[in-house]
Amino acid sequence: MVKLSVLYGHPQDPGAFDRHYNQVHVPLAKKFPGLKGFTTDKPMAINPQENSPYYLIATLYWENMQAFQEAVQSSEGQAAAGDLQNFATGGATLLVGELEVVAPVSLS
Amino acid sequence: MVKLSVLYGHPQDPGAFDRHYNQVHVPLAKKFPGLKGFTTDKPMAINPQENSPYYLIATLYWENMQAFQEAVQSSEGQAAAGDLQNFATGGATLLVGELEVVAPVSLS
Repeated sequence: MVKLSVLYGHPQDPGAFDRHYNQVHVPLAKKFPGLKGFTTDKPMAINPQENSPYYLIATLYWENMQAFQEAVQSSEGQAAAGDLQNFATGGATLLVGELEVVAPVSLS
Repeated sequence: MVKLSVLYGHPQDPGAFDRHYNQVHVPLAKKFPGLKGFTTDKPMAINPQENSPYYLIATLYWENMQAFQEAVQSSEGQAAAGDLQNFATGGATLLVGELEVVAPVSLS
């Protein structure tokens, strides 16, 4: 399986980010062809003296790298990618890698 | 569910990192009480002109925040945390958040 991590920096206006993310971006991202799973979390640093460098982490899964590449190149993928500039005012770091499962888990 | 993301910066010696990670750290981390799942990936930036800021991303799951806190405070958790300094020469950013499942997935 292949995992896309989208690490969103802190936005200028968190309320506006949340509204756009939930109402516009998630529906767009759910249209990615071959999408096998999609989770989000708003992380905090484990060390209470530190701030999280990221406001939101989105994690999306595909069956393999070819399915991921096809999704990114599809019109639906281009629409989701193009939408980032509409709300990700704190930047977004997009990282993709082959998943290695040390201990299996069902996310539901 | 609660998700711990461990974002490892690029180590000075990737081979030494991999050996220690696989032979020592993963066995320690698997002993975390209440651990519900554990995956890793070695990510690359989606943009071929950029480098990933991270060498390895480890993702660990617990049932809820209380189970996570108990795991961190356990002797097994302290042993795993204490081991970071033995191999994470590129640093490690530890972030924890409540998981929101947009589209369920089984990681196996």
